[in-house]
Amino acid sequence: MKKNLWIAVLITFLIGTKSHAQEALFGAQQITSPEIHDDSSVTFRFFAPTAESVQVTGDFLPTVKVETPRGMMDAPGKADLVKDDKGVWSFTSSSLSPELYNYSFLVDGLRSIDPNNPFLIRDVASITNIFIVGDGQAALYRTNDVPHGTVSKRWYDSPGLGMDRRITIYTPPGYEKSNEKYPVLYLLHGAGGDEEAWISLGRTAQIMDNLIAEGKAKPMIVVMPNGNVIQDGAPGEGSEGFYKPQFMVPKTMDGTYEANFMDIIKFVEANYQVKADKANRAIAGLSMGGFHTLHISRHYQNTFDYMGLFSAAIMPREDATGKVYSNFDETLKTQMDNGYELYWIAIGNTDFLYAANKEFRDKLDAMGMPYEYVESEGGHIWRNWRVYLTQFVPQLFN
Amino acid sequence: MKKNLWIAVLITFLIGTKSHAQEALFGAQQITSPEIHDDSSVTFRFFAPTAESVQVTGDFLPTVKVETPRGMMDAPGKADLVKDDKGVWSFTSSSLSPELYNYSFLVDGLRSIDPNNPFLIRDVASITNIFIVGDGQAALYRTNDVPHGTVSKRWYDSPGLGMDRRITIYTPPGYEKSNEKYPVLYLLHGAGGDEEAWISLGRTAQIMDNLIAEGKAKPMIVVMPNGNVIQDGAPGEGSEGFYKPQFMVPKTMDGTYEANFMDIIKFVEANYQVKADKANRAIAGLSMGGFHTLHISRHYQNTFDYMGLFSAAIMPREDATGKVYSNFDETLKTQMDNGYELYWIAIGNTDFLYAANKEFRDKLDAMGMPYEYVESEGGHIWRNWRVYLTQFVPQLFN
Repeated sequence: MKKNLWIAVLITFLIGTKSHAQEALFGAQQITSPEIHDDSSVTFRFFAPTAESVQVTGDFLPTVKVETPRGMMDAPGKADLVKDDKGVWSFTSSSLSPELYNYSFLVDGLRSIDPNNPFLIRDVASITNIFIVGDGQAALYRTNDVPHGTVSKRWYDSPGLGMDRRITIYTPPGYEKSNEKYPVLYLLHGAGGDEEAWISLGRTAQIMDNLIAEGKAKPMIVVMPNGNVIQDGAPGEGSEGFYKPQFMVPKTMDGTYEANFMDIIKFVEANYQVKADKANRAIAGLSMGGFHTLHISRHYQNTFDYMGLFSAAIMPREDATGKVYSNFDETLKTQMDNGYELYWIAIGNTDFLYAANKEFRDKLDAMGMPYEYVESEGGHIWRNWRVYLTQFVPQLFN
Repeated sequence: MKKNLWIAVLITFLIGTKSHAQEALFGAQQITSPEIHDDSSVTFRFFAPTAESVQVTGDFLPTVKVETPRGMMDAPGKADLVKDDKGVWSFTSSSLSPELYNYSFLVDGLRSIDPNNPFLIRDVASITNIFIVGDGQAALYRTNDVPHGTVSKRWYDSPGLGMDRRITIYTPPGYEKSNEKYPVLYLLHGAGGDEEAWISLGRTAQIMDNLIAEGKAKPMIVVMPNGNVIQDGAPGEGSEGFYKPQFMVPKTMDGTYEANFMDIIKFVEANYQVKADKANRAIAGLSMGGFHTLHISRHYQNTFDYMGLFSAAIMPREDATGKVYSNFDETLKTQMDNGYELYWIAIGNTDFLYAANKEFRDKLDAMGMPYEYVESEGGHIWRNWRVYLTQFVPQLFN
């Protein structure tokens, strides 16, 4: 090829590809957003020369009270961006605590992602941008230069549900080359979640890699199943194709999932190098996943030595007919009598499930059933669930 | 728990969670978009009562010519949405051919994702929504009710590059329970891509599952490495954290990747049940990955029996010093003399690399080096690369 032709090809690479053509066409901006400063303040920028207002909203801002049918509730705050003479709007936050935060823009009232930040997470059907600030707790959420485990998206056979189902499995660094057997944490998502939730919103792989590298967690396998029994995989990943995810999915809290949970344990214990005994099984979940944890660990007696209820829903629906919900008090007492290493309950002090958890702890106190309890700030949010995971995992399998 | 309290909790689940509170706050709409009709036309909807114009753009629309420094080029077309009295804008396409398409909205000229469609893909730094229409070719891109392989994100040690690096590996259905050894396809991304590109934009797992289920492809392992030697992982997945991806990454076409490619093959052959011989190795790539395929297969003589150049860049930069680029004609002749099963070249008839590929085919013709050639419609786009993959894979390892 002649030099001129090659230079033409290179130039074309630079200007001619679809994504670049689109950037030119769409007026996307070569601006930096978010920009994280040395003092942990963050500048957000958005190019919109003809917009009348641009705001940013997200969990890095103080919450505000909003009126709901249930009374006043916390909602993410908003901040106004200011426009410069080039049409670039900007806002700089105060110094932020180390954390993974999410945000969106409101452009003339319409929600928009940040076109300069391709890092997004899906929470049910909502897409938001994310960024990480600082060290400390936030360093646990980064991909650091430490040995990394493997994240696999596999399909397991559930004879009970009559389908192959997608499942996310983290195996620790060195697993593939090792002859060791490992303990297993079963980690369950909440309502509206699926087998993608803990690995994306929960940063589970990064948290596990980092805690193991620091010697704070034992190497373990983390199994993240899909708790929606009508799905074979997450929206967009299963045979139902692309559809808008719903927060409430049918049959999620009627006992069907719990009744078929052994299909998952059998798959894991038949397919992975695991220590298949009670001392080496833990189960934890957030919200609906805490509810599943409570009932699965009580129903399959002597199966788990470690339970984690993160902002858990507690009682079954009154119309739930699943056998797993019967003999609640009796099976809880049997679970207590059989013994376990850890029954760990965590919830935020403004969580709407706070009262239900208080009532449950009162029941445990009355029974004399031992548990550990952590009460954090804040409500029913992923920030708390990531923190709870980093607090729960170091207590396992010691 | 009393029934009233439980009902209150349920109601709170329905209205009180962050994502729901956000939907209410942000004015998100319970409308359906995109809606795919029985005749394969598609309606796009966007709620924006105060906007002055809403357009949709994407690869489902006929391309338009735009002026660039290089002359007239193809760009995605646009269509105007029309507003109803509720502030919902809509547009219905003509009947579309079976395909996976992408789209974005332009709201008063500003690009926006569709808030009613959480299915997005990232191409370099651009985020677009996607949808799938119809059967035929499009059915290969869906998750169908067939046996599924496993997709793993692992980290391999590259002694040559001095780092652990992230890699995507597809293993076929039944791999984990099998004692068989499998052939391997090494599948390489283009400029601006990474180890996420083929599995997300390329729908590789769905294509492989479906072709294997139909008996059109041999069960095989597909290895999707990261071709940017300065990265240990994709933007957002590696130790550099979150940053805006660039189309041109330093050191991508200077010979460093090719010179260290054996680290990848050694890792795969030491860690997977593979047939480690020439007859059971294939290598293919798109654009820059086709360039890498050309040079790796020529440099590591007698290593691959199957080569796939999809819209390939051909010649090295004139300032590239990598040894891999030396003795081009001589090593190509040796590759020919050693023999291979398939040298497959595919390109679109409007691709900006068409002339370079023509020149390369002329060289092969002059040498008498056998190859197969497929010329498709269209340009340098993912739609073509997905199709090429579905055409290439059935020819492997027969």
